[in-house]
Amino acid sequence: MELWFTEEHTPEVKLSIKVDRQLFSAQSEYQRIDVFDSKEFGRFLTLDGYMMLTEKDEFIYHEMIVHVPMAVHPNVKKILVIGAGDGGVVRELTKYETIEHIDMVEIDELVVEVCKKHLPFTACCFDDPRVHIFYQDALKYIRTCQNEYDLIIVDSTDPFGPGEVLFTKEFYGNCYKALKEDGIVVNQHESPFYQKDALAMQRAHKRIVESFPIYKVYQAHIPTYPSGHWLFGFSSKKHHPTNEFNPTKWNSLGLKTRYYNTRLHVGAFALPNYVEEMLKDVE
Amino acid sequence: MELWFTEEHTPEVKLSIKVDRQLFSAQSEYQRIDVFDSKEFGRFLTLDGYMMLTEKDEFIYHEMIVHVPMAVHPNVKKILVIGAGDGGVVRELTKYETIEHIDMVEIDELVVEVCKKHLPFTACCFDDPRVHIFYQDALKYIRTCQNEYDLIIVDSTDPFGPGEVLFTKEFYGNCYKALKEDGIVVNQHESPFYQKDALAMQRAHKRIVESFPIYKVYQAHIPTYPSGHWLFGFSSKKHHPTNEFNPTKWNSLGLKTRYYNTRLHVGAFALPNYVEEMLKDVE
Repeated sequence: MELWFTEEHTPEVKLSIKVDRQLFSAQSEYQRIDVFDSKEFGRFLTLDGYMMLTEKDEFIYHEMIVHVPMAVHPNVKKILVIGAGDGGVVRELTKYETIEHIDMVEIDELVVEVCKKHLPFTACCFDDPRVHIFYQDALKYIRTCQNEYDLIIVDSTDPFGPGEVLFTKEFYGNCYKALKEDGIVVNQHESPFYQKDALAMQRAHKRIVESFPIYKVYQAHIPTYPSGHWLFGFSSKKHHPTNEFNPTKWNSLGLKTRYYNTRLHVGAFALPNYVEEMLKDVE
Repeated sequence: MELWFTEEHTPEVKLSIKVDRQLFSAQSEYQRIDVFDSKEFGRFLTLDGYMMLTEKDEFIYHEMIVHVPMAVHPNVKKILVIGAGDGGVVRELTKYETIEHIDMVEIDELVVEVCKKHLPFTACCFDDPRVHIFYQDALKYIRTCQNEYDLIIVDSTDPFGPGEVLFTKEFYGNCYKALKEDGIVVNQHESPFYQKDALAMQRAHKRIVESFPIYKVYQAHIPTYPSGHWLFGFSSKKHHPTNEFNPTKWNSLGLKTRYYNTRLHVGAFALPNYVEEMLKDVE
């Protein structure tokens, strides 16, 4: 027999992955959760049928969403992570000895439980004593925060379903308020290539521009996401992501990465013209 | 009815594109040639079932293979283009008024005929008086050249079938000989992501390293190629692709591009660690 997982990137484009077997499938209060094993990508997680991460390429997403802001901010002590139930963001963050406190707000407890059981390569560091998990709505959580965090990482799903509130003006306004005076927010910023993703990307960017004085976008190659061309938002009260960046300091930490490096850090902010134009349209 | 084009990126990964209709299909002396119309990507060309270009994203490949070397070399007069029967490379080159002569060596005349008829968005500039097309084997052609070209662009298919000779040591040795003393070769360098492509990429790089003193690799996001993460090789006798690069000069030309810009030029040479390691393995 053959078993194939297929994701519609648009109604006219499909990516299919041959699956060895389905390890888990359930409907939580918020979404459908599936875990598969495959030869090409190893183990992978989908939410509502959308690819969240694969064992083969998750390092790209997680390194780029964590190490870029960590290499810019000179002194991150306290972090808020939103979403990220798979544990990949927390895994990368816990490599930094200087971080003192990580709050993680994930709406769906079942995602964390499933990842602890089936995705040990990402869900490996929830037991770190600096990590505090809150299972609740991120918007409700962040409304109560003020001048508290050095860094907020928004590891959201797409802006449809449970992730939708993480793409609103109210949410980004509250992120601003929750940050200290030199705080940074990094968010999963969708893709510029297919129209639906590009519109979501523009909407997210518009919200951020309305809330922050510094708003830059950077890119990475993530083969299992639609088009493989993925963006991250870097918004900040004070720190510029490349002008104030000190590569020597980050390199002196000796962290081992497979995608991120300090040359690529700067290069990732050099976007194609067509992406720059889409962003400028909403600035 | 539904009509779907499917390409196997690996035996375990498939990309499928919904097709409106097939416009052309024939077996030439060298390969099978197909042209399709689709809603998502517009018109697209496949050779032996492999995606060559789509109307939606061909600008990325063609701008990156042409403008990077053109922005580095200070005085390109005479160019050799290998492959490139779709006309996209020639279209970008003819934007430069300072270029005097373009030789194009394409093995398959039928590809050029089909593209002239069905792909007017790329095959638009073959009539430029500076363009001279030779329908013959590129290796045989280049064996006869010496100290002749400022720039060689190798727009090859994959290293299986008719494109195979373009990945040999003999071919790159002959490119070296065919170039003037400050000449540059740029080549389609495959992808680092899936194993078969990555091995082809390493083989190509090894051949280039054996033939040229300067060998760098740069990347682009090309959504319709396997994994979307595509590489180009920049090899040179003298000019370094970023150290000697003069963005002001290129910008003063006023060329309109949708992907390439001079910030991205530099950024594209900042590769992920895992790609750098693959390249170093064969250097």
